[in-house]
Parts: sequence; C-alpha cells; structure tokens
Amino acid sequence: MATDLKKIIIDTDPGVDKIFTLCFCGFLLLEIAGRTDVPVAEGSHVTITQGTKLRIADFVHGADGLGNQNFHPPKGKPIKQSAADFIVEQANLYPGKITVVALGPLTNIALAIQQDPAFVKNIGQIVILGGAFAVNGNVNPAAEANIFGDPDAADIVFTCGADVVAVGINVTHQVVMTDADRDKLVCSNGKHAQYLCKILEVYFSYHHDAYNTKGVYLHDPTALLVAVNPSLFTYMEGVVRVQTSGITRGLTLLYNKQKRFAEITEWSDKPSVKVAVTVDAPAVYKLFMDRLMDS
Amino acid sequence: MATDLKKIIIDTDPGVDKIFTLCFCGFLLLEIAGRTDVPVAEGSHVTITQGTKLRIADFVHGADGLGNQNFHPPKGKPIKQSAADFIVEQANLYPGKITVVALGPLTNIALAIQQDPAFVKNIGQIVILGGAFAVNGNVNPAAEANIFGDPDAADIVFTCGADVVAVGINVTHQVVMTDADRDKLVCSNGKHAQYLCKILEVYFSYHHDAYNTKGVYLHDPTALLVAVNPSLFTYMEGVVRVQTSGITRGLTLLYNKQKRFAEITEWSDKPSVKVAVTVDAPAVYKLFMDRLMDS
Repeated sequence: MATDLKKIIIDTDPGVDKIFTLCFCGFLLLEIAGRTDVPVAEGSHVTITQGTKLRIADFVHGADGLGNQNFHPPKGKPIKQSAADFIVEQANLYPGKITVVALGPLTNIALAIQQDPAFVKNIGQIVILGGAFAVNGNVNPAAEANIFGDPDAADIVFTCGADVVAVGINVTHQVVMTDADRDKLVCSNGKHAQYLCKILEVYFSYHHDAYNTKGVYLHDPTALLVAVNPSLFTYMEGVVRVQTSGITRGLTLLYNKQKRFAEITEWSDKPSVKVAVTVDAPAVYKLFMDRLMDS
Repeated sequence: MATDLKKIIIDTDPGVDKIFTLCFCGFLLLEIAGRTDVPVAEGSHVTITQGTKLRIADFVHGADGLGNQNFHPPKGKPIKQSAADFIVEQANLYPGKITVVALGPLTNIALAIQQDPAFVKNIGQIVILGGAFAVNGNVNPAAEANIFGDPDAADIVFTCGADVVAVGINVTHQVVMTDADRDKLVCSNGKHAQYLCKILEVYFSYHHDAYNTKGVYLHDPTALLVAVNPSLFTYMEGVVRVQTSGITRGLTLLYNKQKRFAEITEWSDKPSVKVAVTVDAPAVYKLFMDRLMDS
C-alpha cells in the first residue's frame, strides 16, 4: 500500500474491528505489536455539546472493547496532549499532509475544529467511518453507532468545510468476513492471526444474533482503505447534515443537489463532502486477508 | 378499472395534479364535471398538534391551487360534517369497505383516528401519497410536502394499526408526463383535455425550474392506482415513523426489520405498513393517458 507518504492519525474508540484496522496498518494494539514509537493521545470521554458520557457498545465488542480476553492494561502512557490538541498540532506542523481516519464518535475532531480556526484549512483530509446513507442504522433504524455517539460533533465535522469523506454502513456492510475465512485465518501463519481469532468470538456472536449472518462486517478496515486507496470506492458529492434530536437523532442526510428548493433549507450554503456509495468489496477483502495472513 | 366495488374517499388539498386524479376517477373538480352527487366535506385548516395553518405551495400549483386560471368559486356547498366526521361515519357505515386515498397532509385522517377508537378497525385501507423513502424530499432534502404539512398527524396515521399503504416520491417520480405528451393531450378529443392543459402551465414551469426536467411528476394519479390496481406496484413491509422536529422534520423512516436491535427503539412494537418500492411506470402512464384522451 502506498502509505509511505501519508501521515495518518487514527481517531478511535476501542472495538474488535478497530484492532483489525490497526493490525492492517502494520501495528496491533501498539504494545502487543511492540510499536511504542506510535504516539497515543487520549480522546474526550464526553460528547461535545451535552457532555454526556460516550456510549460503549459492550454487547458488540465485549466489556473491555477487545472481545473480553482480559488483557493486562497497557504499561505505556498516552502523551500528555489531548487527542484534539494532538490533531491540531499535527495539522499545523504538516499543513495539507495529515489524514485523520475517524473510527469512533467525532468528538475529538469537532473539538479540534472549535479550538483552531485554521484547522479546517490545515488538515489534509478527514475520513469518517460513520453514517447510514439511505439505509437503516445499526443502533436503531435511524442512526449508525459512531454518529449516534455524538450527533452534534458529527454535524460540526460534516459542515466544517474541510476535505471530508464519509463511509457509512451502506458501504461497509458489503465487506464481510465469513466464518469459513475466520477458520482459514486461524490456520495461517500470520503473526497476529491467533490473537485476532481469540478476540473475534464476541463480534461473530453479535453479528449472528443481530443480523442472522455467519460473518462479520469489516467496517473499520474498509474505512482505512478510503484513506489509502480511494479508487476502490465511488462517491457522491453533496451536503450532509446530522439530526441532533428526536426519534431520528444521529441520522445522516445527504442532499444530492438534484432538486433546487424554492425556500432556503438547512442544507443551503453548506460545504459539500464526499460520501462513498460503492466499494470494490472483493478487492478490499483480498487486501485485508492477504495482509492478516502474512503479517 | 375495477373500481365498481370500491368505495373511495379522496382526502385532498387543492393542486394541479389532484385535478388530474379527480379527472382520472371520472369526475373533474366535481362542478366542472357536473358531478354534484359526490359529497364534499371540508377538511381541517390547521395541523393536528400545533394548530398552525396548513402550508400551501403556491409556487407549485398557483395561488388558487388550480394553476392560476381565475375560476369562479364553486356554487355548491360542502356538506355540514367535517372531513374527519365524514370519514369516520362512512367507515362505520361500510366496515372494511372504504378506502381513503390521502393526497394532502394527513390531518383529517389523524383526527378520525383520534375521534373514533373503532375507526382503525372499520376503515378498509388508507392509501397515503406521501413520504420520501431513502431519497431526498421535495420541500427540503429531508421531507416530502404532504408529510411536512403535518408531521405529527402523519406519525399518528403511520402507527395507527390500520391497513396503510404509502406511495412516496421515490416511486411517483418515476411516472412523468412529458412536454410532448401534454401537446398530444391538447390535440385530443378528451372532454377535459383542454381544461387540464390550461391549468398545467404553472405546474410544468415549476418542474422545469426545480428539477430541470421537461415534464411533470404524476404523483396523485399514481397514488390513486395503488388503491384500485395495487398489482402495478411492489411493496416493502415495515414500521414507518415520522420525525416531528429539528432539521429533518417531516422525514419518513421505514424500519425494514433486517436487523434485530439490542435496545428498544422508537420503531419497536409498532404495527407494520406497506411502502411502495417499484412501479410499472409505463402501465400507469398508459392507463392515465388513455383515460384523459378518451373521457
């Protein structure tokens, strides 16, 4: 992968498929993979506007967010900066060069936008794993989990004017690891393969109950590929707003600009973003499996 | 059309395509068509919960709702009952036999539901022209005009438990009358053809400006056909809720039951409705044009 020239910041909460993604990047949970040279900054624990505790989906990822494997807590310490400060600093140090890949609620990025008026100009790209565009959500029929986690923050990020690309579950649900392929992974020589298979149990079981599928969605690795190999996807451009209250709180709505409205709407005069609409799922999956089996 | 056994109540606000529909039914604006035997009841002028004046889209249908043709006001008087009372009464008189085709905001039907606990059981079917399912709206990116007109009423109707079928703009936008066909209609011998072409001017001009199309959407006639010829459409079943506040006020969201959610949602334990997803547009269009040219 042509990642050598890309500076990527991964902004994530814990989760089984996040580990996949870190592993996919070439490091795995940093300490387990021995990569103590990658800085880790602590993110916000509360939502941006209402200050409520960020939601953890323990029934999806296990109580520890890592598949209930009772790992020892990490010995290393995060850097002293907050995640938002770190993102702002890096965007200033390398204007136009940093891609933030957001795999959780968008609180930290929204804080960065609020803290530094130049951030939107300095940041290279913001890739968002989030939203359910024209499909049902995964927290409830209206909302996808990452956007639902902090809808106010998401609306700030979608309308900030930076180069924003969103990958919703309408796309990531097309990239599925089957039970059979998990078994293949167990038998492989990949150095993280055994570890991954252990933490996958909770995640497979959740998918079986919730979606009645014998497989799991590879949300996070798919989003990472938007940052490093964007040509595996196609996109629509338009204005995305997030509903922040009521029964559809957390709903993402893309205005595709096909109709000119007679009256000013909440989508008028807002900057456009890109929203992934198709994915070359076999290619994404092959890249992912090859990497896990070899590394 | 097999309408002889169907008792249909049309619940409508004024509008150019509503006239089409009435004409399609075999009567045209009642007085113009000489049908003084069809009872007309006056509907609510205000929304169900907030009591605000119902919205009129004069830029779509003209200031009089009838293409700005300065017609004389009708000489006949509506019956003394309100539209809601009339619908309730008819449903009681002919249990299971009445189809209400709602071509405007759903205020009157929601009032009927609130007035008579037996209405939901007595009414045969409620066909709703309304909603924008998984597509942008036509009032703003989130909302379709009829639902936007009274979102609280719409949510009451969608969740009432009656046999409800919704036809949204995702379907009606597939049935288009072109400029060329309008010209064909002008030259035809249809007895209402000349009249219709007069009132169409505002409607064509609106579509050209808003959608950049040389044609108009036949929303209302299409909805009527759901009542009388349902096999021209395919349907999904699920729970529909309406967002009643915020930037996506008036948004219709169908939960398709593909996923089981871990937590109780606002869609849980609500009755299912049918939502049209495809239409045999050429067949609908042919039925419509044949009728207009002949009648």
